[in-house]
Amino acid sequence: MYNLPMKLWQIGEFGLIEIITEFLNKSGVGDTPEHDILIGVGDDAAAWRSQGAPQLGTTDILIQDVHFSLDIITWRELGWKALAVNISDIAAMGGIPRHALVSLGLPSDTEVEQVLEMYQGMAEIAKRFALSIIGGDVVKAPLVIISPSVVGMAGNNILTRSAALPGDLIAVTGYLGSSAAGLRMLKAGLELDEETAGYLRQAHLCPLPRVGEGELLAQHGVRAAIDLSDGLVADLDKICQASRVGARVMTNRVPIHPLVLAAFERDSLRLALSGGEDYELLFTARGDVIEGTKSLMSSPVTIIGEIVAEPRRVTLLDEEGKAMEWEGGGWEHFRDERFA
Amino acid sequence: MYNLPMKLWQIGEFGLIEIITEFLNKSGVGDTPEHDILIGVGDDAAAWRSQGAPQLGTTDILIQDVHFSLDIITWRELGWKALAVNISDIAAMGGIPRHALVSLGLPSDTEVEQVLEMYQGMAEIAKRFALSIIGGDVVKAPLVIISPSVVGMAGNNILTRSAALPGDLIAVTGYLGSSAAGLRMLKAGLELDEETAGYLRQAHLCPLPRVGEGELLAQHGVRAAIDLSDGLVADLDKICQASRVGARVMTNRVPIHPLVLAAFERDSLRLALSGGEDYELLFTARGDVIEGTKSLMSSPVTIIGEIVAEPRRVTLLDEEGKAMEWEGGGWEHFRDERFA
Repeated sequence: MYNLPMKLWQIGEFGLIEIITEFLNKSGVGDTPEHDILIGVGDDAAAWRSQGAPQLGTTDILIQDVHFSLDIITWRELGWKALAVNISDIAAMGGIPRHALVSLGLPSDTEVEQVLEMYQGMAEIAKRFALSIIGGDVVKAPLVIISPSVVGMAGNNILTRSAALPGDLIAVTGYLGSSAAGLRMLKAGLELDEETAGYLRQAHLCPLPRVGEGELLAQHGVRAAIDLSDGLVADLDKICQASRVGARVMTNRVPIHPLVLAAFERDSLRLALSGGEDYELLFTARGDVIEGTKSLMSSPVTIIGEIVAEPRRVTLLDEEGKAMEWEGGGWEHFRDERFA
Repeated sequence: MYNLPMKLWQIGEFGLIEIITEFLNKSGVGDTPEHDILIGVGDDAAAWRSQGAPQLGTTDILIQDVHFSLDIITWRELGWKALAVNISDIAAMGGIPRHALVSLGLPSDTEVEQVLEMYQGMAEIAKRFALSIIGGDVVKAPLVIISPSVVGMAGNNILTRSAALPGDLIAVTGYLGSSAAGLRMLKAGLELDEETAGYLRQAHLCPLPRVGEGELLAQHGVRAAIDLSDGLVADLDKICQASRVGARVMTNRVPIHPLVLAAFERDSLRLALSGGEDYELLFTARGDVIEGTKSLMSSPVTIIGEIVAEPRRVTLLDEEGKAMEWEGGGWEHFRDERFA
């Protein structure tokens, strides 16, 4: 689109908005009729038909050098991940993402090409999940800020953190710890074999939210779920708090990818328990309900423990069923330093 | 709520979220049944009933030292204004704001009390417009970032920028230039009489979005509108571009508040034409439609010009109807420096 490198201060806010709008419409993720959009990018607000279904809304903000480092992530990956973490929140409710609004803060010397690469990443994940990008805001900032909001549609059964019951089994989709292993590799510059490096980079920078899985869970009687963003123990603890229950996790059942096991050996379990950013779904339900969903899902589903009445916290059990000491928490803002 | 000064790093992200949630519920703007909320703050996403009406969504991000200076604005005013500018976008579509999601970036040494003051400001404007705050995100950042998204409901007639027709008259609500006059006073430390100073501070820091007015316009046949955020000429130009029309503005008709006229005299017109952030509504319609709306509105409505076929831009006319030279634009990010 641009042969010459051009910076944002050279084209201004309105020039940039025009370029982004054109890009979105060309990519087929902008103002497209099949998304029930009444008014897309370019007015004071966007408008869409709701068809009477319950609406879901979520927002997760990503800030340079807090959530990501431009030394590690490409602009395309950044666009993908910024939408992925929001889509994952909709998936955790059993909903289908429909529309995104994207607020951006960008330094004036950002290249137009970099912004378009970021939108390319957003367009790729938007297409994958039939999501349309229908509005937003672009402003000057001293560092890169991406603040997407995603609106989705739910069926009659919405998955919540507060619906876990004693007697439920606890299950997770996919593998845990891969994203944290990827971050460790990228930060430390570990040299791993090509297959492992590719898998870990993908896991950390381009996570795939479990939208189809969440929808299936909601349709087949699961009631409680959360997406794993802060780490297994921290996120399961949120279920315990919201549902006023306890959880017992058999740590030897926690699914860890063979490539992570091979590369990180003894550290793998810690990565899986507290690493975070896997964006897998954790859910609880009666055993027969979970067994019923397993056969429907294309991704692995692993039962890792059970919900109990007391004590109201996460208890980790070792191979012999004995409670383990655990002082490693999950990610918490204002307390932790990630890239700082 | 807190007797001792406490900083965010002392209570952490989850402590802060708990305090905010408690505050919102106490204020009656959180998870309240009358707002059709299915799931409020505290889960992966919020959920609400849509009743089948068209939904509106908007997001405007505010960044410290780009959009505001903490030397000038209080935390309470900041909370008010951050929601006001988003509510105004819903008003400009003729819709009713319903729900807000608020993403926040805050430095770790921010006082908990300051965050609660900001939520106090948000709660005040939320109550005023029966808006509920149903979710968000709080993260660490090197400077203060507020990124609200507001979802609203529209009737059958949605006001757009692209519906202006040649022959329409152009009207605005309220007075223009007051916000820019307020900013000038606050930045330069001008000492004005108490009444003027109070009016100007309010105009710049606590604008009142024209929600009822927008709704009335939509109900009574107006089709085209925009809220005045970047300045009269800049925003009217957006209508011209979107509707492929031109506009002629009789500058002597532009409504300027008597206190602004008295304090800024010759500069008043420039403030009114290019100042921005007034969050009044500009709309266009046939003369009889505009006359019909005037009697229904409690706020002043002033006809300031007309829509023409050509030329497709804003033409400013002086008292004698002659075209004026005009080189002053509106606000544009990446090109302008406000607080920098």
